[in-house]
Amino acid sequence: MRSRPEAVTVIGLGAMGSALAAALLDAGHPTTVWNRTPGRADALVARGAVRAATAAEAVAASRLVVVCVLDHAAVRGVLDPVAGTLAGRTLVNLTSGSPEQAGAAARWARSHGADYLDGAVMTTPPGVGDPRMMFLYSGSPAAVERHRAALSALGDPLDLGPEPGTASLYDAALLGLMWAALAGWAHGTALVTAERAEATAFTGIAVRWLTAVAGFMTTYAPQVDAGRYPGDDATVDVQIAAVEHLVHAGDARGIDGSLPRLLKATMERARDAGHGADSFGSVVEVLRAAAGAK
Amino acid sequence: MRSRPEAVTVIGLGAMGSALAAALLDAGHPTTVWNRTPGRADALVARGAVRAATAAEAVAASRLVVVCVLDHAAVRGVLDPVAGTLAGRTLVNLTSGSPEQAGAAARWARSHGADYLDGAVMTTPPGVGDPRMMFLYSGSPAAVERHRAALSALGDPLDLGPEPGTASLYDAALLGLMWAALAGWAHGTALVTAERAEATAFTGIAVRWLTAVAGFMTTYAPQVDAGRYPGDDATVDVQIAAVEHLVHAGDARGIDGSLPRLLKATMERARDAGHGADSFGSVVEVLRAAAGAK
Ligand SMILES: NC(=O)c1ccc[n+]([C@@H]2O[C@H](COP(=O)([O-])OP(=O)(O)OC[C@H]3O[C@@H](n4cnc5c(N)ncnc54)[C@H](OP(=O)(O)O)[C@@H]3O)[C@@H](O)[C@H]2O)c1
Ligand SMILES: NC(=O)c1ccc[n+]([C@@H]2O[C@H](COP(=O)([O-])OP(=O)(O)OC[C@H]3O[C@@H](n4cnc5c(N)ncnc54)[C@H](OP(=O)(O)O)[C@@H]3O)[C@@H](O)[C@H]2O)c1
Repeated sequence: MRSRPEAVTVIGLGAMGSALAAALLDAGHPTTVWNRTPGRADALVARGAVRAATAAEAVAASRLVVVCVLDHAAVRGVLDPVAGTLAGRTLVNLTSGSPEQAGAAARWARSHGADYLDGAVMTTPPGVGDPRMMFLYSGSPAAVERHRAALSALGDPLDLGPEPGTASLYDAALLGLMWAALAGWAHGTALVTAERAEATAFTGIAVRWLTAVAGFMTTYAPQVDAGRYPGDDATVDVQIAAVEHLVHAGDARGIDGSLPRLLKATMERARDAGHGADSFGSVVEVLRAAAGAK
Repeated sequence: MRSRPEAVTVIGLGAMGSALAAALLDAGHPTTVWNRTPGRADALVARGAVRAATAAEAVAASRLVVVCVLDHAAVRGVLDPVAGTLAGRTLVNLTSGSPEQAGAAARWARSHGADYLDGAVMTTPPGVGDPRMMFLYSGSPAAVERHRAALSALGDPLDLGPEPGTASLYDAALLGLMWAALAGWAHGTALVTAERAEATAFTGIAVRWLTAVAGFMTTYAPQVDAGRYPGDDATVDVQIAAVEHLVHAGDARGIDGSLPRLLKATMERARDAGHGADSFGSVVEVLRAAAGAK
């Protein structure tokens, strides 16, 4: 029933590239590897990878070419000299960058006859190969389908559509959510540990609480799409009343107050824009309004 | 094996108090109710609750007295005139307030011979009665044990120890985490919906991503307790490089940039304090340092 695992080339064997190549080997894919500093390929070669002597040889070895180096400038530095070898292949770029860089890379690859898929790795190297971890792709739904088996060896491949920049836009948005949540956790941890509580005890409860918070996001998301924010469970006005407690609790314990004050100011802007009786979802409108757009 | 459900009194029948009384009735507890505006008891009386004519009668009806009104001033307004009836009972106060207010309420209740338990409801009224929802308690571990059956009818009771203010301190810290995460979600949603993506599609991915974020918190919490922050997976320096993408992506789309800029500034303060090669957990140190304390 199943065809033989396809051949894959991995270019760039830093922490992430090495993890990608190892996961492909584990799934039985014939894997060719290349890195600017050749020694980084040794461990993978010992596990069965084929070492390419040059970047051109690496590209020529497989129809599916995965690149994961420091940044987009490094991608061009490696691939520009071998662009003539790319025709008919699929280039999957897992190097982090901006949506604009993804668009430029897609145009460049297509001009050389390659199909281009931009990707964002939503885990750290130890998570690569775990099917619960998300890999975001955009730029070529056909490429995701064609190479689904190999991409699934890395993690769960999510296809975000034909626009090359979407994966990196989602990447930025998700990292922003991560930093915001971690900053909120850090503030809460500073608060409770000021009173003898342990960070581990608080964090066990915080992690459980995030499940409820995820439920609020799931409630608010369709409100954003509909542009209406019924404040059935908790209104912006009610949250403003409660955020005062957080500001005071932090001040009383000498904790940095910039995050709670920013949160309070954001809610007050939503209220001042007429969303006092609406849900927190209406904050999305206020953040957009900075653009003068709706 | 199991004893008969104990009698409980609920004072305050707003959205939350009514949900508490309903959950107690559902679990078979003989439930006496009282509210300043008597009409709010009607639906509960129709479901089997006993209506108390006065607050004094309500307190006298049960050894376990739950109060959930607007704020601590309202608690005192209702209970001060009937304080003489409190001796020998357990007063569970689920009204939101500050740690300092909880301490004052505990002293007041004890001076009248009552055991005092301060509580924080970590859900909205529709979640009351769901055993996955957390109710935080502090002030009297003995009271939590004695009334565990009744408290479990409301949600999962977590005992945070003998200090009365702990539940409300955790409440503030957890709400801060919620607002921070929701603000990060709102910013990310504004970002991706600026490019035709739907909030619901992004939020499905964001909710999955929160599981990974919870894993980072679980990694960093013991680092905070130990005061050492090994940056094995991702260092503050690496995060600072990535946060630039978020700032630029938002600016390019006219999204309000105050949250990403605060996150970036917070990480830069951690770096400037010598935590560049440490994990994000080190941000806790920087937030504390505002106090001049360690
Ligand atoms: N690590 C993570 O947790 C993670 C998570 C998501 C996304 N990413 C992204 O994955 C990419 C790689 O990250 P990493 O963690 O693997 O970084 P890393 O361990 O620092 O490795 C960097 C890689 O880039 C190569 N490189 C750098 N400059 C080059 C150039 N001018 N020409 C050719 N090759 C060059 C390096 O080759 P040499 O060995 O020759 O120096 C090395 O293979 C980055 O875009 C990163 O943002 C990483
Ligand atoms: N709703 C939530 O999602 C939620 C979640 C967690 C915690 N809480 C906390 O639960 C408490 C109650 O919230 P709620 O949602 O039930 O509010 P609510 O629906 O506005 O009800 C307020 C209650 O307080 C009573 N009250 C107000 N002032 C009073 C006074 N001076 N004397 C006597 N009674 C007075 C009201 O009585 P009348 O009917 O006579 O006005 C009513 O029973 C608050 O501290 C809130 O922060 C609520």
